[in-house]
Amino acid sequence: MSAPGLLTDFYELTMAAIYLERGLVAPATFELSVRSLPPNRGFLVACGLEQALDYLEDMAFDEDAIGWLASTGRFDDSFLRYLRRFRFSGDVRAVPEGETVFAREPILEVSAPLPEAQLVESMLLNLVAFQTNVATKAARIALACAGRPFADFSLRRAHGADAAVLAARAAFVGGAASTSDCEAARRWGIEPSGTMAHSFVMAFGDENRAFREYAGAAGDRAVLLVDTFDTARGVREAVRTARERLREGGRVLGIRIDSGDLARTACEARRVLDAEGLAELRILLSGDLDEYRIEELVSQGAPADGFGVGTQLGTGGDVPALQAVYKLVEDAGGPRLKLSLGKRTLPGRKQVLRREAGGILLEDILALYDEPAGEGRPLLAPAMLGGRRVSSGESLGVIRERCRMALERLPAEARALRDPRSPRVRLSKALAELDARLAAAAEAASAHSGDPPP
Amino acid sequence: MSAPGLLTDFYELTMAAIYLERGLVAPATFELSVRSLPPNRGFLVACGLEQALDYLEDMAFDEDAIGWLASTGRFDDSFLRYLRRFRFSGDVRAVPEGETVFAREPILEVSAPLPEAQLVESMLLNLVAFQTNVATKAARIALACAGRPFADFSLRRAHGADAAVLAARAAFVGGAASTSDCEAARRWGIEPSGTMAHSFVMAFGDENRAFREYAGAAGDRAVLLVDTFDTARGVREAVRTARERLREGGRVLGIRIDSGDLARTACEARRVLDAEGLAELRILLSGDLDEYRIEELVSQGAPADGFGVGTQLGTGGDVPALQAVYKLVEDAGGPRLKLSLGKRTLPGRKQVLRREAGGILLEDILALYDEPAGEGRPLLAPAMLGGRRVSSGESLGVIRERCRMALERLPAEARALRDPRSPRVRLSKALAELDARLAAAAEAASAHSGDPPP
Repeated sequence: MSAPGLLTDFYELTMAAIYLERGLVAPATFELSVRSLPPNRGFLVACGLEQALDYLEDMAFDEDAIGWLASTGRFDDSFLRYLRRFRFSGDVRAVPEGETVFAREPILEVSAPLPEAQLVESMLLNLVAFQTNVATKAARIALACAGRPFADFSLRRAHGADAAVLAARAAFVGGAASTSDCEAARRWGIEPSGTMAHSFVMAFGDENRAFREYAGAAGDRAVLLVDTFDTARGVREAVRTARERLREGGRVLGIRIDSGDLARTACEARRVLDAEGLAELRILLSGDLDEYRIEELVSQGAPADGFGVGTQLGTGGDVPALQAVYKLVEDAGGPRLKLSLGKRTLPGRKQVLRREAGGILLEDILALYDEPAGEGRPLLAPAMLGGRRVSSGESLGVIRERCRMALERLPAEARALRDPRSPRVRLSKALAELDARLAAAAEAASAHSGDPPP
Repeated sequence: MSAPGLLTDFYELTMAAIYLERGLVAPATFELSVRSLPPNRGFLVACGLEQALDYLEDMAFDEDAIGWLASTGRFDDSFLRYLRRFRFSGDVRAVPEGETVFAREPILEVSAPLPEAQLVESMLLNLVAFQTNVATKAARIALACAGRPFADFSLRRAHGADAAVLAARAAFVGGAASTSDCEAARRWGIEPSGTMAHSFVMAFGDENRAFREYAGAAGDRAVLLVDTFDTARGVREAVRTARERLREGGRVLGIRIDSGDLARTACEARRVLDAEGLAELRILLSGDLDEYRIEELVSQGAPADGFGVGTQLGTGGDVPALQAVYKLVEDAGGPRLKLSLGKRTLPGRKQVLRREAGGILLEDILALYDEPAGEGRPLLAPAMLGGRRVSSGESLGVIRERCRMALERLPAEARALRDPRSPRVRLSKALAELDARLAAAAEAASAHSGDPPP
């Protein structure tokens, strides 16, 4: 689509129209965060800021959009005129992509005239939560792989083309070494990877011919898929092909096993390859893998030199969506909070101060943005001012390296794949006091209006 | 992006290049199906054919794509020349969107020169599996709602903008009454829906003012969100606003509850509304809902007049991706099958014959495509011939109605949300015989080559 204006929930438009009509156009601040971490998550990897900024820069309503809005009969001409001229003019502060974040910490804060800040809610949640979720999954897979490379194979399982290309980006940030998705490889400069399909072996009728053809074409990168018919036989055919290649002065990189009992089959294959003098041939495993399964394979001593991960990586697997929220924390009336059951928010524009010692994250302090600088490294930095990007963006390599270092600094209990414990996130004195004061005032107001209506 | 050529796995290109070089360009048939239904799924709703056909029509490689492919150093000039001219020239047969399908039944079959059929694998899987998964989830939610309408609220949880717009389409096919996603509403002609956010109440400081403003703007469609601070108080404020509107000759449509114990809170709200003479006000429920939760609410007698469903609907929830496969079933050498462990495929181009009696689905017969017509209604129909669409596409309303009727015809045990039982899918005599013959031949070949290599 040309202009992404209609990529918003209908209620955002209804509310924005009322705000405009009532002159509620003073800047307000919304914070995008996660109330509690999903099951088995001890950290999140912030990701998707770049696409969020692209969206804010492009946000506009073209004539098709205006025409459709007019056709609903729900909006008056002055609001449609406003939308026709709409450009996002606000500020964004954000945690840099690749950095770790925890529950209640703002990943991103938007300060903009209230109608603008409201209209961009839906897509900011969508873009930041999706990539943050996949980058987190990828980081967990990287931890499980314990140094072995893994490839993103999720294109066919992703939710549309766009999701696949974004998932490959987030997977790379989290630690994937390569992607099978050519468009993602081109767009993000990621190494493309892939082996062969079972149908390739079937098309040639037998492994002997298929492997020779493939090795001839793929050269020294050739990875042979050995489980189309019978894996033991496939491994023997791979041995034969590898030897032929050696005689011709080339080599085969390895084999891939995609089905069956991966640990047992990989052990058997390793034994055969080693016995045949092919110790340098790598074994790649794939097939319904995720961080739990990879950790199990690694702990069983499966001789895997790398993994291909699809479905579980690109879709988030056990966490299909991050339940991020976008909450009003400050407006013309000052800092705001919300008390509703289980959905408590903390008031005010914030900063996260990260305290580290000896290369390990000790704790985060959730502070007010304009508190005098105290201890700890501030995580949120300006990303957009007055609707314009502050800088031209970071390379994915820089972001990926930031993630790698952030994972190294996590305490072991936060890195655990099951029942992890996040580092402590405490409130600064100023934030705690503000929160207590506003909560008391809100409780008092609530008690008052608890009287029967007149 | 302009041309979607690179939206494919790298190995598809490697394989296609080898096929071309070796002259393996005779038509081959691949079948897209699901080997076994995901947990708690008794049926699937076929969806995404329209986008699959769009993709096949658009599939091409632009100069950027060719340049990137050349830069990888893995492809020779003759293959790049082939890709530069690439257009999909094959045939597609498919189950119409909205129809129910079961395990092992082809949702779609592609017959095309082998390299073409191979190159389009990744995106066909992506597009058909995603929408089929969401349409299935929506159909399950529709069954749980037992006649009450539900709205798609998934935009903020979807995997990018594209995923949101496609999820809204699939949700509508499966039975959603409306969507909060304006772009989806515009593109697919779906009713837009939405209420207000908690931040709206906060921006006005109290419910009294926020509700009056909202009711004034939204008119008779106004649904008031009552749980920003305290739900009981919110309901009383909604009563006050509804009465004011009645005095002014208008009305309020209802209230929405988004947190807490929904069944209990809805009962309390219903009692208050009825006692206040506002029996016509509807109660809409939202907040982490899916078909299981809705079934529970309905069985508890929660007085809900409608539901809003987000995360679980747009992402597939408990089934984040459908593990569809795309398997070679026939090529120049005739029908093919694959025997590898747990990944058995059935050979040959197929037809699904559906037998129904008294408005209930009795069984499906999986037959060969060119078997003499027997009993049952054939499900697969030509959708594309020689790279061109057979027809200009169906309206979403027609597809949605097909789905509604197909759900009605399902036996109750297939519709069950937990531990369902699918209708029987049996093989026709001709398919069973072909399968047995090819399997025996493959086993014999496997036993033979099981001898130690020379």
